Amino acid sequence: MKEFKITKLTPNDMKYVKMMVQELAEFEKMPDGPKLSIENFQADLKNNRFFGFIAMSEIDDEPAGMALCYMAYSTWEGPFIHMEDLYVRPRFRKSGLGKNLVVAVCKEAKDKNYQRVQWNVLDWNPAREFYNKLGASNLSEKEGWLAYRLEPEQIAKIASKEI
Amino acid sequence: MKEFKITKLTPNDMKYVKMMVQELAEFEKMPDGPKLSIENFQADLKNNRFFGFIAMSEIDDEPAGMALCYMAYSTWEGPFIHMEDLYVRPRFRKSGLGKNLVVAVCKEAKDKNYQRVQWNVLDWNPAREFYNKLGASNLSEKEGWLAYRLEPEQIAKIASKEI
Repeated sequence: MKEFKITKLTPNDMKYVKMMVQELAEFEKMPDGPKLSIENFQADLKNNRFFGFIAMSEIDDEPAGMALCYMAYSTWEGPFIHMEDLYVRPRFRKSGLGKNLVVAVCKEAKDKNYQRVQWNVLDWNPAREFYNKLGASNLSEKEGWLAYRLEPEQIAKIASKEI
Repeated sequence: MKEFKITKLTPNDMKYVKMMVQELAEFEKMPDGPKLSIENFQADLKNNRFFGFIAMSEIDDEPAGMALCYMAYSTWEGPFIHMEDLYVRPRFRKSGLGKNLVVAVCKEAKDKNYQRVQWNVLDWNPAREFYNKLGASNLSEKEGWLAYRLEPEQIAKIASKEI
């Protein structure tokens, strides 16, 4: 049985975060997405832009997965956790590690009395079955939520009142 | 023509925020959703859990609308703005105020060089037409993103490894 040590993300882990973000982007079929350097991640962690957990394989001292989160805010229920990336590297899958990373996130939520843990997933991602087993609600299906985004070009146009 | 003054949210505005959050919840057909007190909002604002803009009607010194946001984080592009509530009170609609509130948010994004402004909207909300005119992408449609959520009961079960 594989053994993992799960700890809070620290600046020293950012090299592994960058590597796993790239791996996850490749899995999501968007390999050109990631733009951040190790130094960017280190600065953003220091500024509390995100927090999270990393799993290290105790057998070979290699990163095995991570849950990277940020603090979101509901005007109904206050601060809550948004899980931005939950990732287990391919060779460490089917070991229960994904669940243990979610357990770490939920412990943090319970300790701090946050009322929600939320995340987004692509509709074709088989992880949805795992999320259903955890008892998570699909809010897009249940309530009809859609995600909208402005990109830099539109942001600049709107900011200068060109739209 | 109606005139509005748009300023950054301060602790004194929290009574209006609470009132508008309730009005918006009623519009969204979920009137029992909001649980936060004025004091909760004041503490959360102080702790940088959220930020935003309020529009006051200059004619009668009444709140007319708001854009309430928090800082989210992309592991591809770094910090970005999530607009949690964009609200214009019914009698102040059709005045361009919604757009001016989005302009205020986009100016903030442009000043700080944030690469995204993002938000969620219910599929039946007529505001979607306005968002399309702004040039926003519907990510749920374009990329297939779905929102999932764990509620307190599940969070507690997972935290204590009962699931």
